[in-house]
Amino acid sequence: MMKIQLALDRMTVEEAIQMAEQVHPYVDWIEVGTSLIKEFGMKSVRALRSRFPEKCIVADIKTVDNAAYEFDMCFSAGADIATVMGSAPLVTIDTCMNIATKQGKQVMIDLLHTPETQLKVLTKYKEAIFCAHVSKDQQEKGGHKQSTDQLHSLLEMFDETKHQIALAGGINLDSLPAIVSTNPDVLIIGSAITKAADPAAAARTIKEFLFSWKGENQRE
Amino acid sequence: MMKIQLALDRMTVEEAIQMAEQVHPYVDWIEVGTSLIKEFGMKSVRALRSRFPEKCIVADIKTVDNAAYEFDMCFSAGADIATVMGSAPLVTIDTCMNIATKQGKQVMIDLLHTPETQLKVLTKYKEAIFCAHVSKDQQEKGGHKQSTDQLHSLLEMFDETKHQIALAGGINLDSLPAIVSTNPDVLIIGSAITKAADPAAAARTIKEFLFSWKGENQRE
Repeated sequence: MMKIQLALDRMTVEEAIQMAEQVHPYVDWIEVGTSLIKEFGMKSVRALRSRFPEKCIVADIKTVDNAAYEFDMCFSAGADIATVMGSAPLVTIDTCMNIATKQGKQVMIDLLHTPETQLKVLTKYKEAIFCAHVSKDQQEKGGHKQSTDQLHSLLEMFDETKHQIALAGGINLDSLPAIVSTNPDVLIIGSAITKAADPAAAARTIKEFLFSWKGENQRE
Repeated sequence: MMKIQLALDRMTVEEAIQMAEQVHPYVDWIEVGTSLIKEFGMKSVRALRSRFPEKCIVADIKTVDNAAYEFDMCFSAGADIATVMGSAPLVTIDTCMNIATKQGKQVMIDLLHTPETQLKVLTKYKEAIFCAHVSKDQQEKGGHKQSTDQLHSLLEMFDETKHQIALAGGINLDSLPAIVSTNPDVLIIGSAITKAADPAAAARTIKEFLFSWKGENQRE
């Protein structure tokens, strides 16, 4: 079953907890967004971990250096998954993979603006989750959306049977059918839930869509 | 006169303040390191700003997305300079430049692992400070040092009369002469000061070296 990762960004830790309290029955993973980490530090991760002991917590720390220190920090604060930039030096990504493996945790590699030559090298990390990511700035300032064409050419570099794929970037109810058709393992959804008039209803609708889509898919 | 930027990393906010109190007469800029920001959030920037109102404070936030939000956050917390990754999408770097210009602040572009094609584009940002950076992980895990050969080939892409250059990555008293000979505007120094038995003495020695080097240079 495709997972929903709720991305919590641009809010206080208290608002993040309140949001997660509203929608947690309809999401699988809770992401402590980069903006929460950079504004409030690890207390944001500790707070969500403590309130939701049963959920998978993703710390979107976007490491580019100092991998052991940052990943230890996230895992000590209670994260199950932490993120590293695909554009980081390979020695940094290697270190993230090693730290996570030793601690029984996982790495999500954010492919934002990662050069193609490096993407090819990254496919060796079979234990990682690869996140194809249209950034906030690309959406807001550049007018980009997660286009299925771009996505397909990116996803061609990965093997569906060997790699876990997450998709992020402005995913909403309108774009959901096209996005879901690429069969990712994780859908990362932020404002389509958190900015909805009724966040719980929005999350439930998305969850129901995934259930029904899965059903259709199985019948084929 | 070449500036010294004291990099404060892998310590608590209280330790950072105590360290800066010891060495502040011998350094020009105080950098709130990425590890402090990710561990403690903006309170690390506010604390250093408040204790050192006269110093230039650099927030090493290493933005890769969400540029307006992150740069506003740093400048509101009192930073004079904030950092963005050179490997980020151009729309993100553009946004950082615009926010900084509007607020009379500055951007430092961290060139860590930035592809050469992108480096060429970045040279258009005449108001930025460019940081040639051998990362902690490259030093510790990869055995890299800031080699003068690599540096020279990187610096060739920039024009000494038009671009401001900062150098970072394991700079110490041994490597100082070779590094200084490339004539950067800013030397970013962390553990050579913060891990010294006597941090104030280490910072003073480096400062004195820059004074004497400047003297020799002027005589030539």
